[in-house]
Amino acid sequence: MDQPDLSAFLPRLLSLKLLPRTGWLQRGVRDVESIAEHSYSVAVLCLLIGDQIEGIDRGRLLAIALLHDLAESLLGDLPATATRLLGKATKRQAERDGLVSLIGHLPQADEYLALWEEYTDGTSREARLVKAVDRLELMAQAIAYERVGARGLDEFWPPNDDWAAEFPPVEALAAHLRAERAKLQWQPDPDV
Amino acid sequence: MDQPDLSAFLPRLLSLKLLPRTGWLQRGVRDVESIAEHSYSVAVLCLLIGDQIEGIDRGRLLAIALLHDLAESLLGDLPATATRLLGKATKRQAERDGLVSLIGHLPQADEYLALWEEYTDGTSREARLVKAVDRLELMAQAIAYERVGARGLDEFWPPNDDWAAEFPPVEALAAHLRAERAKLQWQPDPDV
Amino acid sequence: MDQPDLSAFLPRLLSLKLLPRTGWLQRGVRDVESIAEHSYSVAVLCLLIGDQIEGIDRGRLLAIALLHDLAESLLGDLPATATRLLGKATKRQAERDGLVSLIGHLPQADEYLALWEEYTDGTSREARLVKAVDRLELMAQAIAYERVGARGLDEFWPPNDDWAAEFPPVEALAAHLRAERAKLQWQPDPDV
Amino acid sequence: MDQPDLSAFLPRLLSLKLLPRTGWLQRGVRDVESIAEHSYSVAVLCLLIGDQIEGIDRGRLLAIALLHDLAESLLGDLPATATRLLGKATKRQAERDGLVSLIGHLPQADEYLALWEEYTDGTSREARLVKAVDRLELMAQAIAYERVGARGLDEFWPPNDDWAAEFPPVEALAAHLRAERAKLQWQPDPDV
Amino acid sequence: MDQPDLSAFLPRLLSLKLLPRTGWLQRGVRDVESIAEHSYSVAVLCLLIGDQIEGIDRGRLLAIALLHDLAESLLGDLPATATRLLGKATKRQAERDGLVSLIGHLPQADEYLALWEEYTDGTSREARLVKAVDRLELMAQAIAYERVGARGLDEFWPPNDDWAAEFPPVEALAAHLRAERAKLQWQPDPDV
Amino acid sequence: MDQPDLSAFLPRLLSLKLLPRTGWLQRGVRDVESIAEHSYSVAVLCLLIGDQIEGIDRGRLLAIALLHDLAESLLGDLPATATRLLGKATKRQAERDGLVSLIGHLPQADEYLALWEEYTDGTSREARLVKAVDRLELMAQAIAYERVGARGLDEFWPPNDDWAAEFPPVEALAAHLRAERAKLQWQPDPDV
Repeated sequence: MDQPDLSAFLPRLLSLKLLPRTGWLQRGVRDVESIAEHSYSVAVLCLLIGDQIEGIDRGRLLAIALLHDLAESLLGDLPATATRLLGKATKRQAERDGLVSLIGHLPQADEYLALWEEYTDGTSREARLVKAVDRLELMAQAIAYERVGARGLDEFWPPNDDWAAEFPPVEALAAHLRAERAKLQWQPDPDV
Repeated sequence: MDQPDLSAFLPRLLSLKLLPRTGWLQRGVRDVESIAEHSYSVAVLCLLIGDQIEGIDRGRLLAIALLHDLAESLLGDLPATATRLLGKATKRQAERDGLVSLIGHLPQADEYLALWEEYTDGTSREARLVKAVDRLELMAQAIAYERVGARGLDEFWPPNDDWAAEFPPVEALAAHLRAERAKLQWQPDPDV
Repeated sequence: MDQPDLSAFLPRLLSLKLLPRTGWLQRGVRDVESIAEHSYSVAVLCLLIGDQIEGIDRGRLLAIALLHDLAESLLGDLPATATRLLGKATKRQAERDGLVSLIGHLPQADEYLALWEEYTDGTSREARLVKAVDRLELMAQAIAYERVGARGLDEFWPPNDDWAAEFPPVEALAAHLRAERAKLQWQPDPDV
Repeated sequence: MDQPDLSAFLPRLLSLKLLPRTGWLQRGVRDVESIAEHSYSVAVLCLLIGDQIEGIDRGRLLAIALLHDLAESLLGDLPATATRLLGKATKRQAERDGLVSLIGHLPQADEYLALWEEYTDGTSREARLVKAVDRLELMAQAIAYERVGARGLDEFWPPNDDWAAEFPPVEALAAHLRAERAKLQWQPDPDV
Repeated sequence: MDQPDLSAFLPRLLSLKLLPRTGWLQRGVRDVESIAEHSYSVAVLCLLIGDQIEGIDRGRLLAIALLHDLAESLLGDLPATATRLLGKATKRQAERDGLVSLIGHLPQADEYLALWEEYTDGTSREARLVKAVDRLELMAQAIAYERVGARGLDEFWPPNDDWAAEFPPVEALAAHLRAERAKLQWQPDPDV
Repeated sequence: MDQPDLSAFLPRLLSLKLLPRTGWLQRGVRDVESIAEHSYSVAVLCLLIGDQIEGIDRGRLLAIALLHDLAESLLGDLPATATRLLGKATKRQAERDGLVSLIGHLPQADEYLALWEEYTDGTSREARLVKAVDRLELMAQAIAYERVGARGLDEFWPPNDDWAAEFPPVEALAAHLRAERAKLQWQPDPDV
């Protein structure tokens, strides 16, 4: 075949539909979102929010949003406890190596890796926006699980929203989610 | 709030993680992909394939890919049998109205609706590429289900790949999937 | 075969075990009841309640209860948001056409369609009882989901129980469910 | 309350949506039908088939179909291996006692118990038709699982269809299912 | 084969991964633990707790923990309502017969059956410790379900912890779980 | 509390009921076994097989079987692709650190860590038997998934059974599973 080959990539991509977001499982939530579901939600929000922010390059933004979780098809979704045990540098290197093994043979591989590093290092507004939306989406999903009963999800809510300060629409949505959560009137988590 | 409000949209977006792709269910496949999972997979493939095709606008391509299924949060994933019963025009109008009710209040609403119509009518290369990748992804998921046992999925395989002719990398992947399927050596479907 | 043929109907019938009730999914409830599960529960309640009401024809009652959701095997369970977008008349016609395509070839087809129209139009006591029990069962399932944590299900509770006034045993059970719900002491839904 | 009380029965009825048919699980099939799903499917088939057989009382037929599995809300679905270990008489008595505890306080309790005994003993045509359809539905579900990959389900196929001889439409459908199964061209089960 | 044959036992053992703990299902909890998951958790706790108690024989303790639920692969997990209907003696005999049919042909069968009877009759400290840990694990799982929303699980909490008095570490953990539960501040169960 | 505290360990232990074995998911198998289910099955087989092998210390054997996967509650089940990317030494260190954080405060912590190292290094017969049974159980589960339709699981079958040579009963069961698999008459995996 003379086209760059995506055939080995296809089953890896599809496996992201099955690999769960493990943090919820650790907290006892069952039947949780897949990595693909989370990433889709992040990408849509990036599109709709990014378009409201001046100077954001839509193509770059969405490329980062769609690329940044692909390596999880090889690593699984490492929960925060795993990152602590493995170390951030080790995880980062494994993710990068994973990405290379998945799409390193494509003509645009250099750009993709550059975008991925941009994301990891937060060196562009687009990269930082994806990261902020990633966090926002986590809060949105947390409240969705809380609305059907889950407690004990405090760890998924950052202590404040400074991380969103660069992007007012994200900050506004984060404030909205906190306000919604307050209406649920949960007690603070017992410290199990 | 002076930002255009996405707060009502958020739970609708998240519901796409739970709404299943119904065609598989009708064929007896259980525990199937969500709409969000399918759309994520389509978007990633659009990015990686679109970049291999000259003259494709990445931002436009990915916007179409991410927007085109949003109305299913209100309609559900209507299976082919439903479309036949409701009529294509009715379905199209309902999807458009649904999209308006979801994101019609955003500043870019006009562009989003134009992109959605572009997709529905196939009036740009980007729109046609999303549609071709959407079909390709269906075949890829079909073979994934067939590889874990499913039969009776012939209806999800188009009779030929003329629909992919405009985009050689899609055509090549479709041919690859057909070759993989042949290796599974299923008998043709009994006509239940 | 000289018997009227149910062989094509069988897989359609079985698909109702897999097609979910979508309204719950839209509200974030996961792993929800299938259409078949709901319809079974309605039919059993119709039997036990109908027998307590004078003048109800058991055979007619149960036939209506068992027939009225069959078309959902072709349409899926259209959530309220879909009905609003498609229009009630369109939905009704699609359901009728669906029923014809499923069982229109049976000798009793005319009676079945007449029973289905009776249900849709509420033109017999049996039909109205099935509709009332259908609503009651929805409330019973809503409280069952609320008892394992779900909130945000207010839309599934009618504002009052006038719809049950014709059938005192239904009205009594509706009142019982409201009383049970009050004991759960949920706050009123935040308006997400 | 002066109506006979169904309030304690409601959560028992709803639990049939969650209790699985255990025989499939023992054979490695996952995410299987609930008791409610099976019983719904049996009841619909009883209606459509019963109407094709002269002299069948529809109300009696459907009452038997809807009553006969209710006690499983207390016992669970006892697989064949359990029945062998417990003994048929013990199981029968437990089911009867269960039914009494569920609906023995209703005005029609005597009729319901009589119908249940009719079913267990096969002492009416309606009762025997429900039993035949129950077996037919099992075969239909078995082939549905086989069509998405399951093997090792031979035990769910009776050695012949003598049990259906009294009811030609059931016999015809059983023959149809066997023919469909033959098309799947499974090897006979390895005797694991 | 001249080794004692475990080949027929293997699929029975694996079926414990699929057979659910039915008590939760009866209370409306969905997607619940399997028998295997419960038994694993009991065995690990037996190891860690047993090692803290003087005079406990680790091998004997763990053998009891791992053997005592095996017969459920043939009987399913009989909920408390089933035990009441079947009678304790009948259940016990069926479990014993089941165990014999599963592993009665192994050289150590006599010891295994003796250990199982020891468990059932509580005639050794190891047996009583397994039983206490079994109860503790039930409470731990109940609170885990309560922390993601479930109510109505009061029946799984014993009225007091006298059953744990023989084993201080179990008693301490039971007290801890009750304290955690109090923090959840559920209202007492409405008596549905 | 003056007893060594297991209260923080409890939710970690229970999370093993929810964390899936990821290798199956990567191959498209859905609704797969949890880590707890696998470990339970391994422990039971260790008991029954170990008792047939002279000189095996039952308590030591079962302690190793029950301890060796505990760290996965913090790391998740790292698939083989993750181990390759992270490196075996990194994974081992993370697992050890994880075990310390889970149970390092218990009086027997030194013994537990020694047993875990014994397992990792294969320095005792008991440790090597657990490892062999772990592999055997993987084959048994693979064939169980293959019997309900899965293909593409070749990677879970070792090329030969030299790893089992030390333990004849394991070797015999492995041979039995290979023979069963041959009866399924799958074609060799297409190399997707």
